[in-house]
Amino acid sequence: MTKIAAIIGGGVIGGGWAARFLLMGWDVRVFDPDPQAERKIGEVLDGARRALPMLYDTALPAEGQLSYHPTIAEAVEGAAWVQESVPERLDLKEKVFHEVVAHSSPDAVIGSSTSGYKPSELQDGLADPSRVVVTHPFNPVYLLPLVELVPSAKNPPEVIDRAKEILTGIGMYPLHVRKEIDAHIADRLLEAVWREGLWLVKDGVATTEELDDAIRYGFGLRWAQMGLFETYRIAGGEAGMAHFISQFGPALKWPWTKLMDVPELTDELVKTIADQSDAQSGSTSIRGLERRRDNNLVAMMRALRQQDQAAGALLNAHEAGLRQPLEDAVPLTSLRRVIPVDWTDYNGHMNEGRYGQIFSDAADAVMKHVGADEAYIAGGLSYFTVETKVAYLAETHAGERVRVDSRVLLGEGKKFKLFHEMKREADGEVMATCEQFMLHVSLETRRSCDPAPEVLARVEALAASHRET
Amino acid sequence: MTKIAAIIGGGVIGGGWAARFLLMGWDVRVFDPDPQAERKIGEVLDGARRALPMLYDTALPAEGQLSYHPTIAEAVEGAAWVQESVPERLDLKEKVFHEVVAHSSPDAVIGSSTSGYKPSELQDGLADPSRVVVTHPFNPVYLLPLVELVPSAKNPPEVIDRAKEILTGIGMYPLHVRKEIDAHIADRLLEAVWREGLWLVKDGVATTEELDDAIRYGFGLRWAQMGLFETYRIAGGEAGMAHFISQFGPALKWPWTKLMDVPELTDELVKTIADQSDAQSGSTSIRGLERRRDNNLVAMMRALRQQDQAAGALLNAHEAGLRQPLEDAVPLTSLRRVIPVDWTDYNGHMNEGRYGQIFSDAADAVMKHVGADEAYIAGGLSYFTVETKVAYLAETHAGERVRVDSRVLLGEGKKFKLFHEMKREADGEVMATCEQFMLHVSLETRRSCDPAPEVLARVEALAASHRET
Repeated sequence: MTKIAAIIGGGVIGGGWAARFLLMGWDVRVFDPDPQAERKIGEVLDGARRALPMLYDTALPAEGQLSYHPTIAEAVEGAAWVQESVPERLDLKEKVFHEVVAHSSPDAVIGSSTSGYKPSELQDGLADPSRVVVTHPFNPVYLLPLVELVPSAKNPPEVIDRAKEILTGIGMYPLHVRKEIDAHIADRLLEAVWREGLWLVKDGVATTEELDDAIRYGFGLRWAQMGLFETYRIAGGEAGMAHFISQFGPALKWPWTKLMDVPELTDELVKTIADQSDAQSGSTSIRGLERRRDNNLVAMMRALRQQDQAAGALLNAHEAGLRQPLEDAVPLTSLRRVIPVDWTDYNGHMNEGRYGQIFSDAADAVMKHVGADEAYIAGGLSYFTVETKVAYLAETHAGERVRVDSRVLLGEGKKFKLFHEMKREADGEVMATCEQFMLHVSLETRRSCDPAPEVLARVEALAASHRET
Repeated sequence: MTKIAAIIGGGVIGGGWAARFLLMGWDVRVFDPDPQAERKIGEVLDGARRALPMLYDTALPAEGQLSYHPTIAEAVEGAAWVQESVPERLDLKEKVFHEVVAHSSPDAVIGSSTSGYKPSELQDGLADPSRVVVTHPFNPVYLLPLVELVPSAKNPPEVIDRAKEILTGIGMYPLHVRKEIDAHIADRLLEAVWREGLWLVKDGVATTEELDDAIRYGFGLRWAQMGLFETYRIAGGEAGMAHFISQFGPALKWPWTKLMDVPELTDELVKTIADQSDAQSGSTSIRGLERRRDNNLVAMMRALRQQDQAAGALLNAHEAGLRQPLEDAVPLTSLRRVIPVDWTDYNGHMNEGRYGQIFSDAADAVMKHVGADEAYIAGGLSYFTVETKVAYLAETHAGERVRVDSRVLLGEGKKFKLFHEMKREADGEVMATCEQFMLHVSLETRRSCDPAPEVLARVEALAASHRET
């Protein structure tokens, strides 16, 4: 498959798609008649280039080529994926899809970012409706994994499978929506809260800031990791979900809501909301808020990675496919990565402890290289670090690209000694070094012991080759 | 103020309150006629003892005394706070409040965990309604900071202020709900999603697992850190909130919802939901899910701490009040803490890098002790670590309580050299040591320089006293 994506319509959503494809190594061809399109996409791309690589503990593929094209026909040429993100008007989308279908490759998947329309509405009247699906993402597209993949009866299974494979490949989670419905799934839930929130503001019960606090200090934290139903399953306790519903179901009949009605968006209500929002966040620019949001998302998603849960489990699975085996060179380049925002401290530079983590990750990569991999560890054997000596030579900041070059100083019997240099990718400057002494252990007895023969042989061979050069 | 809290009604919510008060150093007196109350509260307490201390980078106060009492009158004796968490029936709550008001101290604050009733409904007919407020928490009460504080016109400002002070003191965020309303604020938003979710399940559009995925891979992550309105403010871009509403407001009129109606909770629908929930999570026990949830919450909230945002900013503010100045002893005990779940790696023990972080935190405490504190750093001077040598002597696991004892090896001019021992609190075993060499620097020139005279004097005095003993 040629890794070429066509982006029809820039803006925040189209730009987010462009960024995700580019940073995952795809070439991206953009069509957008807006004379500001390059600037707008460039701004989204700046944010994505900064934040997305921080989600991963390994370097992303080399960035693809970005190009702008004057016509849809030219943009979609050779594309394996076409993503439409034009304004939410059916007539406009119809026009776009006619052109895309006419000029794109017959095996290209064509996704629509529509938040409201059903795929059958978009497919209506097309020469080939079989390749058009809804692929509805969530802002920021370059960080949030969710994409609602909504096919209709006109999409054959192989199109759905190809769509899933490509979306998963760029680090997204395609949620297969099995039944077409206006606004799909997530936006219906969002709409419900938005409606109720508007009433609470209109009735003077709460300000926008109080509503946000009610979410982010409470159920928002629960939902980020488990969602609604699993959270309630726990609330039901050992008695289970049916018990929970019998206990809390009746509240649905109580007068707890104004959802049956929609508040009229008078100028006055709009002004109230805008004023409250200014009071809440007006001291920070939209760019500043975006950066804060992205930093928070990166830090939280990395926390979930460490737990291998929810969005973090998706990232771990995706990263496993991105990692490359080490190349047999002296020194071994054992790690390439970007320093994420959650690794810095009040000095504004990387916390001491994170150097230790980088060198520990580098050692893991060397261990895998000699055959002491996950299966080996699961079998009850591993290397434990006994002593490290770290020299801090230059300050390291969030966003910097670094690599670790590792040399084997000693590899015999239980003993394995490495010397790591962490270098800035941009200029090769050595930012820190680490001498690391490891002992091979039995995870059962927690005592040192000799490695398995095949691992020992590779350790000794590696040590010999590093001694010679 | 005597730090005594009375808990009327155990269960998950009452037990959560008991745990929070106890772990923040309050004595807790429980009344609950349920013969299983001790067991149930004990289980909640087990979870809280494990998870809550992990949110903090410093030790919590010594745990208070827990006692059980046969009558409300006995339980509320001497209490500064009384928390009611009995089942959601108004007649039962009325009976409880009459007894609590009759027997509690006239300056005790009396909070109700009710999720539905207004404070004026609870106050109705009481001899002294002025002390009764709604303080509605969120499960798990021992981790989530949100508590909706809803007073009525009958509560004088000093009661509201005292309530806020006590709740903040135990690490919660009292959201002052200024206008009484059924179900307060957060549960109205939750109800909205719950209703729409029930319809989507009933109509066969999505399973409980798909709904949870639609939340936790998408907007749940946004809401955990910013809530709804600030997220939409960003979506509106530079054009602002009014622009966002003009763009997305009309969707409210579209047929995107079934909120106008409530699905009937037939046996069939209840079974459908319970079956789907079993398929989604049935392989894990409720205790297992609770532990997973708590681990995720700890890891995410710690991530937000590092960003000093949302729930993490609340934790940072709370921790600042918990930290004690170091006692002038040799060695200096520079740190006491619990190892959190997000510090372990695939071996099941603490990652190498986190030893570095612990020793870095210990060094920070020593720096503060000699006057190189936040104000000093803000003034452009600090110590940077140049070299560390860490010996790993014993494995460290999540949940273990440790302390660091630090000795000054050298303190003259720009040079500051420390020797840290990390010890298990339980038996004093040394788990790791660190020799740390720091240089004093100017944050402006990023070069080494002498400390300010008052800091240098304290460093030299400390070095002299450590040399002598």
